[in-house]
Amino acid sequence: MIFRRPIKHCRECGTAVAYRLPDDGDTRERAICPACGTIHYENPLMVVGTVPVLGERVLLCKRNIEPRWGKWTLPAGFMELDETTAQGAARETDEEAGARIEIGPLFSLLNVPQVGQVHIFYLATLLSDRFDPGHETIEARLFREDEIPWDEISFRTVKKTLEQFFADRRAGRFGMHSFDIL
Amino acid sequence: MIFRRPIKHCRECGTAVAYRLPDDGDTRERAICPACGTIHYENPLMVVGTVPVLGERVLLCKRNIEPRWGKWTLPAGFMELDETTAQGAARETDEEAGARIEIGPLFSLLNVPQVGQVHIFYLATLLSDRFDPGHETIEARLFREDEIPWDEISFRTVKKTLEQFFADRRAGRFGMHSFDIL
Ligand SMILES: [Zn+2]
Ligand SMILES: [Zn+2]
Repeated sequence: MIFRRPIKHCRECGTAVAYRLPDDGDTRERAICPACGTIHYENPLMVVGTVPVLGERVLLCKRNIEPRWGKWTLPAGFMELDETTAQGAARETDEEAGARIEIGPLFSLLNVPQVGQVHIFYLATLLSDRFDPGHETIEARLFREDEIPWDEISFRTVKKTLEQFFADRRAGRFGMHSFDIL
Repeated sequence: MIFRRPIKHCRECGTAVAYRLPDDGDTRERAICPACGTIHYENPLMVVGTVPVLGERVLLCKRNIEPRWGKWTLPAGFMELDETTAQGAARETDEEAGARIEIGPLFSLLNVPQVGQVHIFYLATLLSDRFDPGHETIEARLFREDEIPWDEISFRTVKKTLEQFFADRRAGRFGMHSFDIL
């Protein structure tokens, strides 16, 4: 996770910036360069991931990185510039679990304004039960609903997505769900 | 719109950065500071907006800013750090059209990887036909489907969202739709 620190220097020229209202009618303070005038915008980050399913079971990864080292998560990570949300979700699933999947429909969108993030999860079908976790993952494992380590889930967005997944499965119909984690 | 330029200087200390692979296993080149070691990540930007509906008609705004000055758009803009996607969509609708709305369900998610953006539109119900456009808008106007200026729409994400809106309305059911604009 990236924690937001104030911008100190201009990305264009390196001069120390000052936070103030721009002159263009903008109503928010931005980091503005007194030397070259560059206005630096800070925007939410997108986290993209999957709910990888094999029959009755869902794939979780035990985190080998901070924050939440040793906790269980759905495969997910920061979206990169040159990919779509679905491509990013599939890439993270490959990187963190080494899992072969077929990506499915968009399942959840979760706002986390306290950290300036939007998390998006896609349903995915696992094509194999063989995994090859990357260096960010201690262990990749399949869980039935009654085996999910609910008290050891890394993030509220992951917990909410898993809860909704099992609720939808019981209802026999998967929808697209929005949540605000406040 | 923000066009991405390479990062030239470190946001922490102002030193000139170099693009190279980090030492942490990352497989992409990042702007890294040779002085303080800060790794600068660049991530997609989220654009949030609404499809504001009053009976048979949809609200469009004639842009008073570049790019696409003078073209028609749905109210939309860059999401800010301290808001949810729905709050951002409502804020942009207020700023660009001065329109009073009740925000509805998530309607479209459009990837535009060529510019590193993800656009999200919510359905919205207009509570009044009186508008008070801000400085970014020349004119805010309601259009029936047969009045939409299809050749004068500002962005492909807006055109796609409008097309899908009218298709869903004809079908009598509004869904949630994902598109990749490649
Ligand atoms: Zn500068
Ligand atoms: Zn530095």
